[in-house]
Amino acid sequence: MMLGRVVGEVWATRKNPRIEGRKALLVAVLGQDGEKRTPTGEVVVAFDSIGARIGHTVAVAWGSGARAVFAAPDNRWTLVDAAVARIVDAVLVEKDGKEVEERED
Amino acid sequence: MMLGRVVGEVWATRKNPRIEGRKALLVAVLGQDGEKRTPTGEVVVAFDSIGARIGHTVAVAWGSGARAVFAAPDNRWTLVDAAVARIVDAVLVEKDGKEVEERED
Amino acid sequence: MMLGRVVGEVWATRKNPRIEGRKALLVAVLGQDGEKRTPTGEVVVAFDSIGARIGHTVAVAWGSGARAVFAAPDNRWTLVDAAVARIVDAVLVEKDGKEVEERED
Amino acid sequence: MMLGRVVGEVWATRKNPRIEGRKALLVAVLGQDGEKRTPTGEVVVAFDSIGARIGHTVAVAWGSGARAVFAAPDNRWTLVDAAVARIVDAVLVEKDGKEVEERED
Amino acid sequence: MMLGRVVGEVWATRKNPRIEGRKALLVAVLGQDGEKRTPTGEVVVAFDSIGARIGHTVAVAWGSGARAVFAAPDNRWTLVDAAVARIVDAVLVEKDGKEVEERED
Repeated sequence: MMLGRVVGEVWATRKNPRIEGRKALLVAVLGQDGEKRTPTGEVVVAFDSIGARIGHTVAVAWGSGARAVFAAPDNRWTLVDAAVARIVDAVLVEKDGKEVEERED
Repeated sequence: MMLGRVVGEVWATRKNPRIEGRKALLVAVLGQDGEKRTPTGEVVVAFDSIGARIGHTVAVAWGSGARAVFAAPDNRWTLVDAAVARIVDAVLVEKDGKEVEERED
Repeated sequence: MMLGRVVGEVWATRKNPRIEGRKALLVAVLGQDGEKRTPTGEVVVAFDSIGARIGHTVAVAWGSGARAVFAAPDNRWTLVDAAVARIVDAVLVEKDGKEVEERED
Repeated sequence: MMLGRVVGEVWATRKNPRIEGRKALLVAVLGQDGEKRTPTGEVVVAFDSIGARIGHTVAVAWGSGARAVFAAPDNRWTLVDAAVARIVDAVLVEKDGKEVEERED
Repeated sequence: MMLGRVVGEVWATRKNPRIEGRKALLVAVLGQDGEKRTPTGEVVVAFDSIGARIGHTVAVAWGSGARAVFAAPDNRWTLVDAAVARIVDAVLVEKDGKEVEERED
């Protein structure tokens, strides 16, 4: 999965009908700059499966793994290629040899 | 999906015959620079499924997800690897704690 | 597909035998810098299916889509992961509100 | 596989239930700068299969290869798209014409 | 395939058992800077199938194409996602309108 932050919601009236009724979220990809997680400048449009909203830090599954977020074996031909799989509450990191919990919200 | 803007249409007379009759669009990938969506410099050639034209902001599905845009189970061996899946009308973002609709056209 | 320019041909005597007899082309990936298509610095090694030569602008299919360029259902286990699918004659772009044809050769 | 260093553990209470009970590790991707392996700034969230911990250098499998880390044929629809497949003890490199072992820990 | 140069060999005692007995090579990805092929800074860990060693220029297959390097239909669930498929002897390029052979070793 990639780590990202939800920065928007993408609206479209003209769209391929293979995944109706799912919110398409605009997610800014996060990278690591020293000890900080910061946006890399990349974005991805991911379908939501768990009620993510603007401002949430999320883990986004991609490829056939993303399809599995919604999937049953018979939806093989859905066009899902990126899906929000987790809303991140915190990241446990190590600082000065100790494990520290960094809250996200 | 990736977010992009249609910047051209790719013409080819010598081509593999596995997807005839589809427009191949040149799509500039968009990233996020602070609060702005701007081109990253990358491009992708994506098949059109919904009438997208130069200037449109679009969401492009990739990988096996892209194939599904055109797909029926029997077209497994088509060479589609990127497909325009949505024409984006607007992106809903948050500014100063309020949700704001940014129109695309 | 990605857009690229053929810059070389890769020769190998020691190679996995699963795709004999195909030319392996070295393709410089193109990006978009303002209105120009310029090399991004990335390269990919793609199998040729249509007679592409050094200097040609091409569209390269990747992943399982690439396999489909050569494919019949029984070649599932071929190692093709990138294939030249189109030789680009021209790109139609918009300039000052008018559609303009930019020739490639 | 990509090479990376485990920098954290991602906690989530709201998550898709398709892979319960696995630790989701935050892995900083490593690149090569001359003779040094250094972080590229990218991160990936990968499921652990072998007891990796913060500070470990690891090899991460991705795509359908990642699913295979946990997989049996019937878990095709799991959402795993990146998995820690190896904890790296050392990298053998060449310096001044001699093979040298660089320990990781 | 991507083009790369073998810069090391990755050793691991704790690893997923799904591909025993294969060497895991550290490959620096090559890009194109003008007429030169130079490292991009990215690395990939690829399984060897043909006896590649440190210093070799190689073509690396990825994704399901990589699995095919070792594959028989029944190894679908192996975790291979990148495999050395060719050892490159030379690259044929064009200089001043003439085809020139650049040796690799």
